[in-house]
Order: sequence, then structure tokens, then C-alpha cells
Amino acid sequence: MAESADDRIRLVPRLKNQGYRREQVAQRRSWIEKQTGAALPHVGTFSIDSEDLRGNIENPVGVAQVPLGIAGPLRVRGEHADGIFYLPLATTEGALVRSYERGMVALTRAGGAEARVYVDANRVSPIFTCSSVAQAHDFSRRLGERFDEVRAAAEATTSHGRLIAAECLPVGRKVIVDFSFFTADAQGMNMIVKAADAACRFIVEKIGGERYLIFSGYNSEKRASGSLLRGGKGKKVVAGAELPRAVVERVLRTTPEAMVEMWNQTVLGHLTTGSFGYNGHFANGLTAFYIACGQDTANVANAAVGITHFELTGGGDLYASVTLPSLTVATVGGGTQLGTGRECLRMLGCDGTGKARKLAEIFAAALLGGELSMGAAIASGQFVAAHESLGRNRPAPEGDEK
Amino acid sequence: MAESADDRIRLVPRLKNQGYRREQVAQRRSWIEKQTGAALPHVGTFSIDSEDLRGNIENPVGVAQVPLGIAGPLRVRGEHADGIFYLPLATTEGALVRSYERGMVALTRAGGAEARVYVDANRVSPIFTCSSVAQAHDFSRRLGERFDEVRAAAEATTSHGRLIAAECLPVGRKVIVDFSFFTADAQGMNMIVKAADAACRFIVEKIGGERYLIFSGYNSEKRASGSLLRGGKGKKVVAGAELPRAVVERVLRTTPEAMVEMWNQTVLGHLTTGSFGYNGHFANGLTAFYIACGQDTANVANAAVGITHFELTGGGDLYASVTLPSLTVATVGGGTQLGTGRECLRMLGCDGTGKARKLAEIFAAALLGGELSMGAAIASGQFVAAHESLGRNRPAPEGDEK
Amino acid sequence: MAESADDRIRLVPRLKNQGYRREQVAQRRSWIEKQTGAALPHVGTFSIDSEDLRGNIENPVGVAQVPLGIAGPLRVRGEHADGIFYLPLATTEGALVRSYERGMVALTRAGGAEARVYVDANRVSPIFTCSSVAQAHDFSRRLGERFDEVRAAAEATTSHGRLIAAECLPVGRKVIVDFSFFTADAQGMNMIVKAADAACRFIVEKIGGERYLIFSGYNSEKRASGSLLRGGKGKKVVAGAELPRAVVERVLRTTPEAMVEMWNQTVLGHLTTGSFGYNGHFANGLTAFYIACGQDTANVANAAVGITHFELTGGGDLYASVTLPSLTVATVGGGTQLGTGRECLRMLGCDGTGKARKLAEIFAAALLGGELSMGAAIASGQFVAAHESLGRNRPAPEGDEK
Amino acid sequence: MAESADDRIRLVPRLKNQGYRREQVAQRRSWIEKQTGAALPHVGTFSIDSEDLRGNIENPVGVAQVPLGIAGPLRVRGEHADGIFYLPLATTEGALVRSYERGMVALTRAGGAEARVYVDANRVSPIFTCSSVAQAHDFSRRLGERFDEVRAAAEATTSHGRLIAAECLPVGRKVIVDFSFFTADAQGMNMIVKAADAACRFIVEKIGGERYLIFSGYNSEKRASGSLLRGGKGKKVVAGAELPRAVVERVLRTTPEAMVEMWNQTVLGHLTTGSFGYNGHFANGLTAFYIACGQDTANVANAAVGITHFELTGGGDLYASVTLPSLTVATVGGGTQLGTGRECLRMLGCDGTGKARKLAEIFAAALLGGELSMGAAIASGQFVAAHESLGRNRPAPEGDEK
Repeated sequence: MAESADDRIRLVPRLKNQGYRREQVAQRRSWIEKQTGAALPHVGTFSIDSEDLRGNIENPVGVAQVPLGIAGPLRVRGEHADGIFYLPLATTEGALVRSYERGMVALTRAGGAEARVYVDANRVSPIFTCSSVAQAHDFSRRLGERFDEVRAAAEATTSHGRLIAAECLPVGRKVIVDFSFFTADAQGMNMIVKAADAACRFIVEKIGGERYLIFSGYNSEKRASGSLLRGGKGKKVVAGAELPRAVVERVLRTTPEAMVEMWNQTVLGHLTTGSFGYNGHFANGLTAFYIACGQDTANVANAAVGITHFELTGGGDLYASVTLPSLTVATVGGGTQLGTGRECLRMLGCDGTGKARKLAEIFAAALLGGELSMGAAIASGQFVAAHESLGRNRPAPEGDEK
Repeated sequence: MAESADDRIRLVPRLKNQGYRREQVAQRRSWIEKQTGAALPHVGTFSIDSEDLRGNIENPVGVAQVPLGIAGPLRVRGEHADGIFYLPLATTEGALVRSYERGMVALTRAGGAEARVYVDANRVSPIFTCSSVAQAHDFSRRLGERFDEVRAAAEATTSHGRLIAAECLPVGRKVIVDFSFFTADAQGMNMIVKAADAACRFIVEKIGGERYLIFSGYNSEKRASGSLLRGGKGKKVVAGAELPRAVVERVLRTTPEAMVEMWNQTVLGHLTTGSFGYNGHFANGLTAFYIACGQDTANVANAAVGITHFELTGGGDLYASVTLPSLTVATVGGGTQLGTGRECLRMLGCDGTGKARKLAEIFAAALLGGELSMGAAIASGQFVAAHESLGRNRPAPEGDEK
Repeated sequence: MAESADDRIRLVPRLKNQGYRREQVAQRRSWIEKQTGAALPHVGTFSIDSEDLRGNIENPVGVAQVPLGIAGPLRVRGEHADGIFYLPLATTEGALVRSYERGMVALTRAGGAEARVYVDANRVSPIFTCSSVAQAHDFSRRLGERFDEVRAAAEATTSHGRLIAAECLPVGRKVIVDFSFFTADAQGMNMIVKAADAACRFIVEKIGGERYLIFSGYNSEKRASGSLLRGGKGKKVVAGAELPRAVVERVLRTTPEAMVEMWNQTVLGHLTTGSFGYNGHFANGLTAFYIACGQDTANVANAAVGITHFELTGGGDLYASVTLPSLTVATVGGGTQLGTGRECLRMLGCDGTGKARKLAEIFAAALLGGELSMGAAIASGQFVAAHESLGRNRPAPEGDEK
Repeated sequence: MAESADDRIRLVPRLKNQGYRREQVAQRRSWIEKQTGAALPHVGTFSIDSEDLRGNIENPVGVAQVPLGIAGPLRVRGEHADGIFYLPLATTEGALVRSYERGMVALTRAGGAEARVYVDANRVSPIFTCSSVAQAHDFSRRLGERFDEVRAAAEATTSHGRLIAAECLPVGRKVIVDFSFFTADAQGMNMIVKAADAACRFIVEKIGGERYLIFSGYNSEKRASGSLLRGGKGKKVVAGAELPRAVVERVLRTTPEAMVEMWNQTVLGHLTTGSFGYNGHFANGLTAFYIACGQDTANVANAAVGITHFELTGGGDLYASVTLPSLTVATVGGGTQLGTGRECLRMLGCDGTGKARKLAEIFAAALLGGELSMGAAIASGQFVAAHESLGRNRPAPEGDEK
């Protein structure tokens, strides 16, 4: 075990070859149990192969077990996802699965949710310093002229990523270069940061700029920001459905008019509080889907920015939609190949390459279900009662038993 | 199993007494395996008692196993947390644990991170409709005059929650009433929504307002918003430390000047992109801590709003801080008592009542560690190299082995 | 005339006693005409006494003549303003006066606009630096305990301003102190900055904090920001009216339903673009009223943040409102006593002390008129036609002539 | 005079041919004097030809006289503006002209401010409703394919405007179409709204979409919003200069280090308050320049969004810049040809066609001067003293007299 110069500082033991063998994980777990006095039997219970954790985590001691429930059926009518789906949700918030389930059933009874992907990109936005405002202006012009070379430098580092665009955003004598990449089925940040770094080195050497930092904060990775609403950070996906009045009344137990009135009023709270967009509880569903499906859950910070909308149709039915300008999803890489993550992706038919847009459409439709159910609970005044009921662990009144 | 009128719609089976017995969980898992064709052996491997899932999730089929690593030592010098801590992180993002660990070691070698809690509250913000602007004005005045009665109505529903304030925010003839509660060690949303609802019913009956919706969107629960920066949604916590130049150079491999220059430049990207506050990657640490410690992970949407700051001291050292105006934490309720969540809280000495502020201080200090490490990686140009190294699964150069 | 060391740098002449005599103004005007080659006969035509410019402007050469039109009648039913008003608008944007006039007539025919003032304050928000996070926490606590002394120090500098509150907003080891003042009928920034400065000097001497800057940027003076929506920077005023369907149809040439549908759709654009609140064109009216009435027009940057709302009433009429959380107005000081400014204030019965809230209510009601008219033009598709008509200088079709 | 059905409602008299003859203006003025009891001799004193008001204002009664001062010399080194300028400021805020003058002198002594225009566009953003999410997706695709036809439809209405792009931003089943136009030297809103309307009619007839509203709120005309920071609404202009330490010390009476420290601290207030970008007081200068130069002053709401930045150079001097992503200026149309507006534009050599970018560069450089002076006043603690001095109408200590 490493000893620090200061003997009060006990570093986490560095084990041979980083310590991913099961016994090494156990050894480290014993060490931390001893340091903290906490027994960790649940943490130590897991079925995934500890060697598979290499590249996904350091200093492993086991797993967190997050309860997993299922909600559906959800009929999705997308360009990439077309069929009936059951969503896995990993959560400890009582009533959440039931709430999403209700919304999904409403959508399914209404014939399903349409879903479409508009933009499919990810970005890294380094910041360059030039010697003056005039130099920064020249830099921006020249970078535009030599974009093909910059792209070549970036793409030399990756077999999957493609550099789509590089927009120059000046701030005084500095220039933020917003590199936009296509990352196929991967979340892709590691890939495109590496590619952008290569592009930056080329730029400083051949085009100009005195120096750069690889991140400027502009890209909004794992941060909420206003610029997300336009798209370009992850997949921009829209899902929507027309819900007949009868479905709204029977499944959601409210009316189209009450839903629209609810939206009209609660958007005032969103405006007053200074939020980005409008939503009921995107973060709830996103987090539950992400944990279940081995996604990088921290991306909920950007992915939860979007707009839910409810409006009456000419025929007195309800048109409901969600617009998700920054939905981060992956079907390869990271946690997608690990144990429960892979199983949950398989549950959705989204394991592996060529499936990321399908997954985005399914998540968007599922979030629409959650927005419908939450909106209905608010509109009808059921919210407190619904949570009470499940909180007290009583059977839901409509529950079939066997 | 429930059959829908439309036989294509196969509802998730409703099992007896909600189906929390282990064999019922297995039965449901078999059902979904059959529906989707996906085998779920990992999902089915868990050690927590399935009956304990009642109230935390519906339609359970097992668990998501999220890899858990540890980072530390972290010396915290708070009012509630005082000592050395090792943080559990549940994540699949390679290099994350190592990055936080580095920052924590830097803080510890610098003598630790101070942490202080400023505000400790949670809020529900219903919206009332009055008949006119004049009526809304009267309503607001009367509600202020009769606050004691409103509080009594709210507190009658809860033994733990206390109503601290009710601020009236008019929007035309509507009034958003921002109820601020103290929720002790619980995340508390269910508790305070119920209490607020009782208060609202009292208000409509005795004070005025034609009708209300229990949520207006103002409270920013699980949403990012500008109003969070002032505090009042969760715990407002600040952590900071002065890092001697030698620690910055040796542990973080950069200089105080480079850190400050990095902050000064990257805040420009934050301003240009329209983000709330400034941070390197709050969401990464928060998500990893939340999943590990049985928190309501969706709260990362609000909790990740804050401000990281680096500045030079007069003596040429680095002063670093994080300000987290909306940190949601709980040490009772929800997932805090479940298997791995409880174990991880125990690892921090934060299991049970009277520990929420301690947990908030630890998380704040730990996030500061993450900000230092990320900031240093950007400032020194190590970012790509660090991710490459761990991505390629090579031993870290400084790694001790045994 | 001053000559600089570098003889290419010709400073504006410094004239005796600052040069406010009419012949000195003419002398300076001649100088600038010679420097620039531009003749300034219109600039030199003015009726206000040049000596009155002292304290309001430096280096005067004359005036800008801004065309002034009138719009009304506007029936206001406020607590401070109760009657029929005609608003002066200084603008060069064709169709603007006509548009506001139409909305005012609609309101008047509907029985008038109610208006109410909720908050009446102004703020200065210095930032203090402490030595550490712990010191900043102590500083905040002590400042709260000794608020009475701080108030005394502030109020010693002013006979009109009153310090209402001082809220501490920590950022790391710094503390923004949000001083909230009542400024009576003045815009008051000079007054309260001076008072806040005295308070700060007292604080550093007696309470703590190593140093301070008098502005932190938090106060949002002449800047748009999310925090304005809560109120506290200027007057928070709400105006609203129920417009019978017949008035909407006859005067605004649309329907209540179309107005609500317009609002429901255009709020989506506001959400997508990341604006603060929602409005049609607050800035148009505000700027025109401010220039006319001798206000500090730059305050339009904060005052134009607010929320316009349209909704159907149960009876199928239209309820319309504007909520202006940061309306800056003055009836004493600055340009309010100068020539046309004073005349325009007199036109509204708002000249001098005790009139600022009245003026705020009138402006709010007038802005509501502008929102109704703009909203109706969008809803009905008249917008282009209306601008065409007045742009081509044809008589408005409904115009009576004599 | 028009009489309303309700005889209490006295409409503003509709005079023959809209009433722009001087005696008609006087007649209307007499009428309003009688209605309100306010004498308006100053309002009635003006030199501009009342017939020239046609198209710029309705119901004219005279003018507002706004005090006009001059500040300079300002050395600008732009691509369109190159030389020494004196800026006209119309304001009643004491100390403002002196403050801008100081900053301009500092810039001039430093060799001048560089200025560059990056983007030159204006936009109208109608919103279309489609029948479903799938239809909206098709609509967006088809609109892209037939952009040339859309452009032809738009440009058929205007001889000056050119349609540059049309970006589709979906929100559920609606699509905001962000039309970007080049408007040459005009502010151009009337022109491009008319062109966009023609394009919309073509789209609904030939491409799809059930209906549209000409405004969605997205374009941020006369509103602050986060999307402005990227550019595309008006001219995106940057101005910057390196100020030698000696100039900072002698003219601004502070040090480069104190300026940077001031920026570093006050950006924290901007972040905490949730403002867009960062600035000291853009709105002050903009408003004063706009009123003087016959601009549409209400555009200050969007134009005041931007970023001021101060940083140390390697040599210990100060680099200062302003980035103005949404600077609205015009040298033709509106108030630019009216009396004092035209004279002030001539003072800058910016009267008429081909001068808008020059004007933008001058304004940007001038605003930089204002930011330097304000920043220095805060950094050095002079702010209160400076306002006191001019408020008390004493000669400035450095004043030369003759």
C-alpha cells in the first residue's frame, strides 16, 4: 500500500496492473472497510466480470445496486424505432415507474408516439488566444479557408468520428472554435476531444493563434445552457402524439383542456424562475433510463434541457410533444457493454452499432409519456394522492392481481 | 396477467400485493425476457431484499449494477464534517475516479477543504389564479398577514417539515407562492408537496384565490434555472481551500497562475454559451456520488448549478472554491436505506438522522477536488493524455503496485 | 482649448466653470463643427436653459430633438393612478404611436387597466473578499447581527434613501452583499451607491472583510438578468384587464382565442431563444416613454424584462396582463426637471415628489396597451399590413379627419 | 375631433391627411394641453420640419429635447472606420459624458481601438404549425431543399434585403424558421418582416405547414436573450486595444492588475445574478449614442448584450475588449435622416449608404472606452467620488479653463 510522506495521508492502495482482478477488488474493498468501519457486503455482491471494469472505473470495490423496474408498453413510430417497447428504469423514487407507465400506456392507446431525429452531433469548443482583435479576425477567416486541412488533422486520430463544422466565435482577441463532430453510436467525448486536440495543434502550427485550451466551457458537456436549445450537443430529437380526448380522460384522468391550461400556467413559473425551456420532469426519466442502460448519467445535466408542449387540436383532442435538443445516448462504448447496461439495451433492441438513433427515439417517446403523466397529475390535482398511495405501499386501485 | 381490450397492448403484469416478493420479481423478469427476447441474468443478480424495494420502485425486475470505485483521502474541515473521507463513486466513465482522487489528494496535502452550509431549505411553489390583478394583490397581502395559519395548516401534515416562509410572486392575476420548508435530513419533496397542498386548500378556503395548481415550475425541482443561484432549493454549501504553490505544482502538475488564467478564459465560454454559473464538471462527481449513496440522482439537474472559482492569493498561492446553491442530499428516506446506498453512506459516517449537512459538506469538498483536477488538466494540456492513458488501460505512471 | 502633449490629440475644450452658459455651449458646438465638418443647426436649436444642463451632462453642444407623439386615452385604475391619461412617446419608429394608441383605446373601452405596485426598491451589491470560506461565513453571520449599525452608516449619507435589507450571497470566500434601498421618487442610483459605499467602509472597519468593490454586477443596473424577475431592482408593477370579446373583435380585430393561441405559440420562441420572461415589445414603449419623460433611458435594459400573459376567462373573454418586475421610474432628479421631460411628466400629473408609483402604474398600463396591440397584429396577420400602411404614409382607414 | 360612442372617451384628434403640417402639430398640442392642463412650450420648440415626421411618428405634438454632449477624441482602427472621432451622447445622466471621454482618451493615447465586424445580418423567425411531428420533420427537410424558391419569394419584395439562410428549429409539431437577412445600411426590420411574410405565404402554399405567425419570439428583436451571444441579430462587432501600463495609470488612475482583478471579481456577480454575458454599462453609452444618432433606441434591449473582457498581457499591460454580438445600427431610414440624428451621423462621417459597418465599429470602440472608464472607477474606488464631483457641479480637478 502506498504510504505518503505525511503518514496521516493514506492513499487508496495501488494494486498490480491497476487491480481489476476479483480478488484485488475484494482486497481494496477490505481496505476501505477497515479505513471507514463500514461493512460492504452489498457493494461486494455483483455478477459482472471485474476485468470488464478496466477502462470504465478506477479503484473499483464492487457495484452500486440500483433497483430496476420496467414500464410499458410504449408504441414508438420513429424512423429508427418502430414497435412496442418496455423501458427499464433504475430509480429509488417511489411512483416514478408507475407514472411513466401510465403515460406510455396513454401514448400506446393513442396509436403511439412519433419520433424524429433532427441533428446528430457532438462538440468540443477550444479557445484560442491571438495577439489582438485584428489577429483574431484574421485567424477566424483563415481557419474557414483551410477547414479541409483542419478536418484532415482531426480525423487522422479517429476511425469513427467525422468533423462536420468549425464555427468561430470571437470574444475580444480570443476565438472559441466550436468543432462539431459526428460520433456515430458512441457518446464520443473522448474520441472527439482527442481529434479536436490534434486539430488545434495543427491550427497553432499552420494557421495562427498563440495558444489554446482544449475546453472553453462553450460546449456545455454535462452542463445546462441556453445554447443547447438550438441543438448540436448530442441528438436533437422530437417526439409527439395526438391523444384522443377519450384516452386523456380514461388513462390520464383529466381533459385536454385541463392539460393545456396546466401548461399555460406552469410555463409562467418556468419563465419567472429563469429556466431553460420547459419540462415537467425530464431528469427523472432520463436518469432512470441512463443508469439502467449503461449511459454516462452525468449527461442528464445537458440532456434534461428541452421543451414539453401541450395544445388542443382543432377537434378538441390533445397534441403533446417533447423537444430534446441535447439528448446524449450511446449504444457502444462506456457502460453500454457492461452487464446490466448491455442487458437493458438488448431489452430495447439497441445493443451495439447502428442503434443510437433508435435509442434516442425510444427515450424521447418515453419521456413524452412521463410528461403526460406528470402533467395530468398536476392538472387534475392527483399528484399528492398518487404519491401518497404508492408511498403507503398500497396496491394501485386499478391494479390487476394474480 | 392483465390483458388489455386491445390485445396488442400487453401491460406489465400486475402481481399480488404489488409483487415485491423475490419470486414475483423473478416472475416479472421472466415475463419481460419473453416479451423482449433479452436474457437478464445480471439484472437478476442482487443482494438487496426485494421487499425493501416497496415504496422505492414499481414493477421491479432486479437491479442495475453500476461499477463502484473509491477516491480519497479527502480532508474536510466543515462545521458538520471534520476528518478524512473516502468517497464512493458509481460511474462507468474511465478516468473519473482517478481525476477526483487527484484533486482530493491535493486538497488533503493542502490541509483540507473548508466547507460551510448557508441555507438549508426546500421549496414547493404552487400557482393560484385570482379574478383580477387587484384581487391578486389583495391575495398576496392577506396571505402575508395570515402566514401563521397557513403554516399551521402545512405543518399539520408532517412531523419533520417546517414551513419557513411563503413568498408571493405575482404574474398578472396569478400568484406563485414560493413555500420554503426545512426538511431535516430528508430530500423531502413528497413531504413538502403534501404539506404545501394542505396549505393551499386552507388558502383557497379561508384567504382567497379561485383555484391552484400544486406546481408552477418555479421551484426548479430537477431542473436547472437561474433562480437556483440565490439558494433556497436544497442546501447552499460552499467549500474552499488555499493550495500552496508547491502542492499545485507537484500534485496537479500546473501552476496557480495557469489555473487562474484557465478560469479567466473558460468563463468566457460559459458566458458565450449562456450557462448558469461556471463549473468544470460538477455533474460527473454529483452523479457518481448520488448513485453510490442512494440519493435521488435526478436532482443532479438542479444540484449541478453553481460556481467554481480560482484566484491567486497575495502570496502567489491558489485559492479555489465551489459554491453550490442547490445541493440536494438526504441521509434518510428514498434509496438511503437500501443495500449499497446505506453502505456508502456509512462509509462516510452519514447514515441516518442528523447527517445531511455533514453529507453536504463532504460532497462540496469532494466536488472541489474534481474541479481542481479537471481545471489542472485543462490548464496544463494534460487532459487528452490523461484520458488516453486510462482509456488504454495502462498503469498510471505514478502508480505504486503490490 | 486644451492641447495634449501629442498634438494630434485634440481634447474637447475645457471651458470656464465647466462651460454651461449658452455662449459657451455655442462655442463648443462651433469647435466640434470645425473638427468634424458637420453643421449642427438643429442640435443648436433648443429652448431649455443651458445652465440647467449642469449636473445632467458634460461638454454640452445642444440637444437631440426626438419626435414626440401622443397616445390615449388610457383609463388606469391603480392605487396611485386613477383616471384617464394620454401618454407622450418620443420615437422615430413609424406605427409605434398608432399601435400603442389602439391598445390603450381597447383597454379604455374595456373599463380600464388595473395596476398595482408590489415591490419598491433599488439595490447596490458590493462584493467583499474574505481570507477563506470560513471567514466569509462568519462575515455573513456577523453582518446580519449588526445590520442596524450598517443601516445607520448607510443612512447617514442621505436624507431620502432608506436601507431595507442586506442579503449575503457567498461565492467561495467572497460575499456579495445585496443592499436593498427605498429611494422614494428618485431613480436613486447615485444616492444609494454613496450610501452603500459608506456602509461598506463601516463594514470593513468594524465587521470584517479584507476589501470590497462597490459593484459586483449582481445588481443588474442597466443590464438584463434572470434575477430581475423576482423583483427588487426598481418597482415591481403589474397591470391587467379583462377585455370583453366585443372589444377584442372591434378594436383589436381579432378574437380572444386567437390572442391566447398566439401567446401559446410565441412563448415557444421565447423559450427556444433563451429570453428572460416573455414580451411583445416592452422596449418600444418604455424607450419612447422614458425619452419623453426625462427618465434615465438606459434603464430600459433592466426594465424591459417581464412577462406578458393572455388567457381566456371562463366567460370566453380575454384576460391580459403585464408583470414588470424591474420598472425604473423617477419623478424627481436627473432629467425629470428639464424642459420637455418636466412637461411630459406634467401631462401625466406626475411631476415632483410623491408621484413615482403613480408613474409606474401608468407606464405599466400603457405597456399593456402596447402588448395587446402587438399581440393582436401578430395573431390576426395584420402586422405587415399595418406597417405598410403607415410606412406609405396613407391615412389609417379608420381615421377621422377634420 | 372624433367623438366616441362613450363620451368620456376622447380620442386624440384625427387631422386631415394625418396632420403633419406645423399648424396641425400645434393644434394637436393645444388639444393635449387642454386635456391635461400641462403647458408644453418646450415640446413645441423644434427646428425639424414637421412634414418629415411622417412615417416616423403618429399624432405628433413636437419633440423631446434631450441634452447632447460630446466625447472624444477616439482613435478607431477598424476596417471601415479609421481615424479620430468625437461621439455625440444624448443623456441626462451626470458624469456619463465625462466617463466615456476619459475612456476614449485612454484608448487614443494607447494608439486607438481596433474594431472588426464578424457577422452582419438581421432576422425574422416565424413559427409554422404542422399536423404532426412527422409532418414537421418533412416540412423542415423540404424547406431546405427548396430554399432557392423561398429566397426568391422573399427577395421579390425588397430591392435591398437579401435572404442569407433559413434555419428550421422544431418545437414539437411546430417549426420556427429563423430567416437570416442582409439588410445593408438599414436597421431593416420592416423590410425583412415584409420579405419574410412573402416567403411564408409561398411556403404554406407550395411546401407545407398549416399556418404560421410572422413572429415566434425567437428573433430577439428588442429583447435580451441568450441566443444573441452567438450573433445573427444585427452586427457582431468586436473592439479591443492593448493599453500600456503608463496609460492605465495616468489616464485611468489604476493599474492593469487592479482592472483584471476587478473583472475577475465582478464576473462572479454577473454569474450569480444570471445575466447574459458581462458588461459594465453598455446600455448607458448605447442609449446616448442611439438617441443622438437617430437610431431605433429600443434596440438597446438586444444590443446591450455582450462581453467586456480585461486581461494582462505577457508584458504586464492591459488588453481590453468588448464583444457586441447584436449591435443594431442604421445609417439610412428611420430617424437617421431627421434633423439632429442626421447631424450627429455627419459628425461621425456616417450619414447615408455604405456607412453602417463604419458606424458599428465606431460605436464598439466608444463602448470600449466606457467600459474602461467604468471598470477603472470600480477598481480604484473612485466611482462615488467621481459622481459626487460632477453631481455637485464642481469643475473637474483636471479641467482646463478658458
